[in-house]
Amino acid sequence: MSHPLLDKHRATLDGALHAIATRGYWSPYSEMPSPKAYGETAAAEGQRAYAAHLGQDFVLDQPGQTGWGGKEVSPYGSPLDVRYPLCHPEALVAAGLAAMPGWQAVGAEGRTGLCLEMLARLNRQSFELGHAVMQTTGQGWMMAFQAGAPHAQDRGLEAVAYAWREQSFVPAEATWEKPQGKNPPLRMKKHFEVVGRGVGLVIGCGTFPTWNTYPGLFAALATGNAVIVKPHSNAILPAAITVRTLRAVLAENGIDPNLVTLCVTDEHRTTQALATHPDVKSVDFTGGNAFGQWLITHCQQAQVYAELAGVNHLLIDSTDAYQAMLGNLAFTLSLYSGQMCTTTQAILVPAGGIDTDEGHKSYDAVCEDLGQAIARFLSKTEVACAVLGAIQSDATVDRIAHAHSGQLGRVVLASQRLEHPDFPAARVHTPVLLACDAADEAAYMEERFGPISLVVKVADTAAGIALSERIVRQHGALTAGVYSTRAEVIEAMTQATWRGKVALSINLTSGVFVNQSSAFSDYHGTGGNPAANAAYADSAFVANRFRVVQRRYHV
Amino acid sequence: MSHPLLDKHRATLDGALHAIATRGYWSPYSEMPSPKAYGETAAAEGQRAYAAHLGQDFVLDQPGQTGWGGKEVSPYGSPLDVRYPLCHPEALVAAGLAAMPGWQAVGAEGRTGLCLEMLARLNRQSFELGHAVMQTTGQGWMMAFQAGAPHAQDRGLEAVAYAWREQSFVPAEATWEKPQGKNPPLRMKKHFEVVGRGVGLVIGCGTFPTWNTYPGLFAALATGNAVIVKPHSNAILPAAITVRTLRAVLAENGIDPNLVTLCVTDEHRTTQALATHPDVKSVDFTGGNAFGQWLITHCQQAQVYAELAGVNHLLIDSTDAYQAMLGNLAFTLSLYSGQMCTTTQAILVPAGGIDTDEGHKSYDAVCEDLGQAIARFLSKTEVACAVLGAIQSDATVDRIAHAHSGQLGRVVLASQRLEHPDFPAARVHTPVLLACDAADEAAYMEERFGPISLVVKVADTAAGIALSERIVRQHGALTAGVYSTRAEVIEAMTQATWRGKVALSINLTSGVFVNQSSAFSDYHGTGGNPAANAAYADSAFVANRFRVVQRRYHV
Repeated sequence: MSHPLLDKHRATLDGALHAIATRGYWSPYSEMPSPKAYGETAAAEGQRAYAAHLGQDFVLDQPGQTGWGGKEVSPYGSPLDVRYPLCHPEALVAAGLAAMPGWQAVGAEGRTGLCLEMLARLNRQSFELGHAVMQTTGQGWMMAFQAGAPHAQDRGLEAVAYAWREQSFVPAEATWEKPQGKNPPLRMKKHFEVVGRGVGLVIGCGTFPTWNTYPGLFAALATGNAVIVKPHSNAILPAAITVRTLRAVLAENGIDPNLVTLCVTDEHRTTQALATHPDVKSVDFTGGNAFGQWLITHCQQAQVYAELAGVNHLLIDSTDAYQAMLGNLAFTLSLYSGQMCTTTQAILVPAGGIDTDEGHKSYDAVCEDLGQAIARFLSKTEVACAVLGAIQSDATVDRIAHAHSGQLGRVVLASQRLEHPDFPAARVHTPVLLACDAADEAAYMEERFGPISLVVKVADTAAGIALSERIVRQHGALTAGVYSTRAEVIEAMTQATWRGKVALSINLTSGVFVNQSSAFSDYHGTGGNPAANAAYADSAFVANRFRVVQRRYHV
Repeated sequence: MSHPLLDKHRATLDGALHAIATRGYWSPYSEMPSPKAYGETAAAEGQRAYAAHLGQDFVLDQPGQTGWGGKEVSPYGSPLDVRYPLCHPEALVAAGLAAMPGWQAVGAEGRTGLCLEMLARLNRQSFELGHAVMQTTGQGWMMAFQAGAPHAQDRGLEAVAYAWREQSFVPAEATWEKPQGKNPPLRMKKHFEVVGRGVGLVIGCGTFPTWNTYPGLFAALATGNAVIVKPHSNAILPAAITVRTLRAVLAENGIDPNLVTLCVTDEHRTTQALATHPDVKSVDFTGGNAFGQWLITHCQQAQVYAELAGVNHLLIDSTDAYQAMLGNLAFTLSLYSGQMCTTTQAILVPAGGIDTDEGHKSYDAVCEDLGQAIARFLSKTEVACAVLGAIQSDATVDRIAHAHSGQLGRVVLASQRLEHPDFPAARVHTPVLLACDAADEAAYMEERFGPISLVVKVADTAAGIALSERIVRQHGALTAGVYSTRAEVIEAMTQATWRGKVALSINLTSGVFVNQSSAFSDYHGTGGNPAANAAYADSAFVANRFRVVQRRYHV
């Protein structure tokens, strides 16, 4: 049994399967928004496709529609003025369930083929999606294109590959023949059916509406489930474009498109009711701890895959490339104004300073040098605006202001508001860098989302390693880093990260950054500390999303 | 990287990996308690080894011992008088955690090799384990030997094979090389460490102290976790023998034996405290709904794999082998006095009767004929005692008495108390068969554990299929069956079991019974209905028990 779309995309699937097993660099979707990769007309067409959504009703033909809604305002300053269908959640659940038998019937081969086709279509929409992500999240263009389109597609494909691998282990049928000594053997025919568990709910976030949505969306879909996508109320458009494309691929292939629907709502209660609906069997969530913990506590009918807040951090023990280290950190702290779930917040530096290729540097010198490196990196407004993007929410603007109050620590580098050359109303703010003592735990021991980092003075390297482990255990982290020229420090830090279960980046000084993870190679999170109970993407992310129902009879 | 014990047992592992992928019949552990399979002296030695435990202190050298305890009384009539170490749970958790780094360090290869060695050792103890299981659970000898030893070992091996497969997908290291156009590529070395999540707690049941314990025990162990086994207070000895053997294999191979410990306690509160301990990351539970739901609600720090109560049932629409069907059902209902989590409780029969190869049979005739088939099958006391075994708990004896009250339905066949030829004090009771109407939901819509079955009169076959699906959805089931000569009925029942997610046995008339599942081939449960949230054993049963912690650096 195969499927035409599986055959069509077989090379992509095989590439992904090879990549997740060997974990080298691989991607089928070009990250360069270039005519060479996407065609001469792609950029202009994508721009037009994006612009055509503005001021319009985004028609999806979903069941149970009760009206229109959506009030997205771009962090770059202007409202999008797109209206989306508001649908009764019960109608979406019922329609998803009704679509599932047809989805089950095409088998893992058909589901995988259709998912690969969906991703190929989304790839062709990369410019349109890039603009939608940029304007809803405030990301700079290059990042919005890359993270919002090809990298998100990579993560979706990765989930499809894991889902395929697990499902393909289940044989469709088997003959079971048990010897009975001198008597004829017992013989049975058995059939094994892969069955989705129910409706998957995928709750998106405001900063990465595709990158953080596609893993759960495609993991749930590929394993036989219906999916309802509930986007963040200020980042609906990228999700809506995605859902429309998926529905089109389904319909073209004879599958009820209501398998995938969009649920737009501002009402917390609506999301809660959906998440605890008895037919909702998985919830993928990216967001804050309060609602994440609510979901984990209340959604006992569902498997909850939650990415929550954490305190990302790194330890500087020593370095033989001081300027390169500072440059790497300056970029990390600036990229999308620190609005990544992987951005470093706490930089642990020994009170006695650090040894470097430029001689010993005191704690204060490290603070100053890092501050200057950031300021230097952002000294040209155009570069700064391209890297920083805009601040996604007012709450983050407030946090930046609060960081200057002196309550969290001494201000090493103050944040500046910049005027964006293209978008005068954009909320553009450079990072604020603070200095504090390890004893000031209230300052750095909780996530301060946005361009706010603290250089934390620790007694010595050993104390820094111990603090790192405690941060991971108590508050979680998606990323940790270490700079050291000493093997024993790297070894001790490695072992601490094994105990705390956090990914470690060691001595990053060139074009790889602690806040970036590469699909098919890097696990995004470990799922083993409070910052996330699941990783994108691994076997655990897919294996529990389907069930095998068998039947057997004598032959 | 390999390990001597992995090399030694490689053929067994490869056999298991092949079996779970093809799901034909396979087992490396002979189910025949014969000299040919186990050696001329095995039976006598096993009997002596069992007897040597009686009246003794069962020394385990565990940390935190505070005294001795254990008051097992055999359903066959006599106390075992074995005393087990009572240990402070905190000490067991701490010791398990302390043993984990050494267990991590041997890698999946070492862990898998040691687990295979453990299973081989347990296999050599099959007679000893068989007697321990028989005397603690009341199972008949043949069943106690088979289910208690080789079949339990099969299930443990199956979990090890799944755990190996998932862990072996994670490469130890990778080189990641990303092209940079005309510039040199970015190159990174990455290492991926498989890390157990913490301490696994495995809570055993009173009827299958090894078969239902080994899957969780070996799944947690093989994936890098420490394990605390908390046996049922009347079925400690099989678990204690197991734990002692595992500890010996660990110690012989330089691993801290406190990786695996036994927690004996009568105190519900102690088990609750253990299950909610922050360092306990998985709980495997077999038992009643009340405590199972408590665990699912309260153990939010852990993944809970729970097998709970259900209402197993089958539908008789028609048959072309009436006598063989009755014989098959008589055995199913009699085996271990129905004290299996897979035994049929409700037999749905259309009010208008059924077509058979012996002509049409009315509903009442089916009731009578099934009652007579059971009575006939158990007419010889020796056969009856061997098949029935003894009743494990007083609560089950009480349920049998209550079944005769008339409150649940008309008594078709009354239970009889039998005198066991070898154990005069044994609690031996034949099954009670009742007849009731589908409207009498209170009678059959909850689990009545033990030899109590009801022939439920349904309006017609379609109503029976609908009722089956409702039973599965609302109350769960580990097994469902159907007898029919009509393809459309089998198809409709198949689709109902897909929706409800329960395994279906079709027209069983010979030596395979609905309440038996065959390791490596049959999934035990689906994990998709209220009777169990996990199956033994599949990818989902192992994939979430470990985490991958990576580190990366430029090269």
